[in-house]
Amino acid sequence: MNFISATGNADDLRDLEIYLEKAVSDDIFIKEICTPLIKGGKRLRPKLFLLCARTRKIYPAKKLLPLATALELIHTASLVHDDILDGAKKRRGVETLNAKYNAQIAVLVGDYLFAKAFQLVAENNYGDEVSLILSKLVKNLCIGEIAQDRALFQIPTLGEYYGRINLKTAFFLSTCCRLGGLISELENSEVENLANYGTSLGLAFQIVDDLLDFFGEEKITGKAVGGDLKSGVITLPVIRALQFEKNSAALKKILAQDKISLDDIKTAIKIISETDAVEYCKNRAASHIECARLDLPQNINQAVKFSLEQIADFVINRKW
Amino acid sequence: MNFISATGNADDLRDLEIYLEKAVSDDIFIKEICTPLIKGGKRLRPKLFLLCARTRKIYPAKKLLPLATALELIHTASLVHDDILDGAKKRRGVETLNAKYNAQIAVLVGDYLFAKAFQLVAENNYGDEVSLILSKLVKNLCIGEIAQDRALFQIPTLGEYYGRINLKTAFFLSTCCRLGGLISELENSEVENLANYGTSLGLAFQIVDDLLDFFGEEKITGKAVGGDLKSGVITLPVIRALQFEKNSAALKKILAQDKISLDDIKTAIKIISETDAVEYCKNRAASHIECARLDLPQNINQAVKFSLEQIADFVINRKW
Repeated sequence: MNFISATGNADDLRDLEIYLEKAVSDDIFIKEICTPLIKGGKRLRPKLFLLCARTRKIYPAKKLLPLATALELIHTASLVHDDILDGAKKRRGVETLNAKYNAQIAVLVGDYLFAKAFQLVAENNYGDEVSLILSKLVKNLCIGEIAQDRALFQIPTLGEYYGRINLKTAFFLSTCCRLGGLISELENSEVENLANYGTSLGLAFQIVDDLLDFFGEEKITGKAVGGDLKSGVITLPVIRALQFEKNSAALKKILAQDKISLDDIKTAIKIISETDAVEYCKNRAASHIECARLDLPQNINQAVKFSLEQIADFVINRKW
Repeated sequence: MNFISATGNADDLRDLEIYLEKAVSDDIFIKEICTPLIKGGKRLRPKLFLLCARTRKIYPAKKLLPLATALELIHTASLVHDDILDGAKKRRGVETLNAKYNAQIAVLVGDYLFAKAFQLVAENNYGDEVSLILSKLVKNLCIGEIAQDRALFQIPTLGEYYGRINLKTAFFLSTCCRLGGLISELENSEVENLANYGTSLGLAFQIVDDLLDFFGEEKITGKAVGGDLKSGVITLPVIRALQFEKNSAALKKILAQDKISLDDIKTAIKIISETDAVEYCKNRAASHIECARLDLPQNINQAVKFSLEQIADFVINRKW
């Protein structure tokens, strides 16, 4: 994601790492547990926020970095709690907290990171509006995950799938862009356009993620292959493959099992590959990215616009 | 806890229930899961806040109830997450979320309730200071629990025990009193006194809680007997009993086991009863309550002061 130089905010991103480290240094146990945890993410959410916050009015980094940090902390907290839900063993290439410690620690560390995010917002005087936007963001993440949990091993309609990935991912990316636009003092319609860019980007991101869950390389994605299916989360590649009569019976048989084995996942991948599901998902993701590009406001800082377009390219072409 | 009439805030407490119900009604699943969950607590935290908010400057209930609700939501969220940690089956006399649904739902519902609390604070314009106080509160709850989790089955010193119950309980009650004092526009020293009242009250509360864990009636406490010991949390009655040479070997043997059975708990209760541990804990709790009374500021609304004294009485004499 080599978009940084375009906006000259390489310094921001270096500083972001320092802010993140500092954010988990208040307590000795938290520091020990969280320092490895916060390394190595894509930083997509803070990057989006930082770019969108530079679309017109230019604030110094000091005013932006605490909120950028809060967004990454909320993301990290939700990953930590997701990994409990999924029983995931690996994330970002390292052991998850529930694998390394236990579910208890993972619950508490996630809670801590959420609280720390709200602390950063409050102590840097972003005001109630920003705090309100973040609280709604966290609520939506939870509502999306609860809906997902209550529908495990059920085959969702395309609409249900979109509802879920919207709450899980697209709303988050959209919120980052919206917050940036607000801070940059764009006009309302421009903020909405940026937020729409974030939504489309997020839908594409999640569809690509769902493809990578089956077809990504474990070493590159940092996650075990087939994790979603194993935990009963049925995503677009499966939804699409089920539409092919020839393949649906075998797939449904796998889904009807109490426990899905590694062999089942291999079989599922083979079945999906025999359909057009991969192409179908790629095309869908590409068209969301097309929408994202179209939504970008015209009269904003052109270096930022270029970077936001580069992010769109990254999302569709990424291997991790 | 019949202190309500003294301050004439029976209406507040009726309204609090309405606010709480409304707070969990944004989403259909959340409503279904949380409506039973929010019933039947002592409401100690919002009560303390509401009383302390009426010590001098008198605001209308509408200004106070959202924050009172937020405090109870944070408490409920932490209970929900605690119950995952402890593997508890019952709370407030009803099934815990992890027993009724699963740990996943319990994680997410807790997250939701935390976020909802911050939403209530932000959308009612309490400002960044209140949000900051709440975020530090949640952080402290987590730090306390993490420290507890990392020291399971280890016998704490008295100092470690106090450190833990301070973060777990006393800091929370203190925060409720502090927030009330701030809103009531007391002088700084009076706010500190109220906060100290809350700390002492909280230490007494937790010591009584730790006694009730062994000697309470399940039907009245709503929790299974010996839950702390079973999950490896060693509390004051055990710490004290271990000081008696005659009894410590048998107790240590129980603590050294991988799994603590119901029979072990019965044995532990018998051993504790043979020492002065119960009396010792009661005396300690009583002296904290004495401190709490002494910390109450003098020149505040006398009906409120009387109610705060009644709460102190309740805390020491309670059976649940």
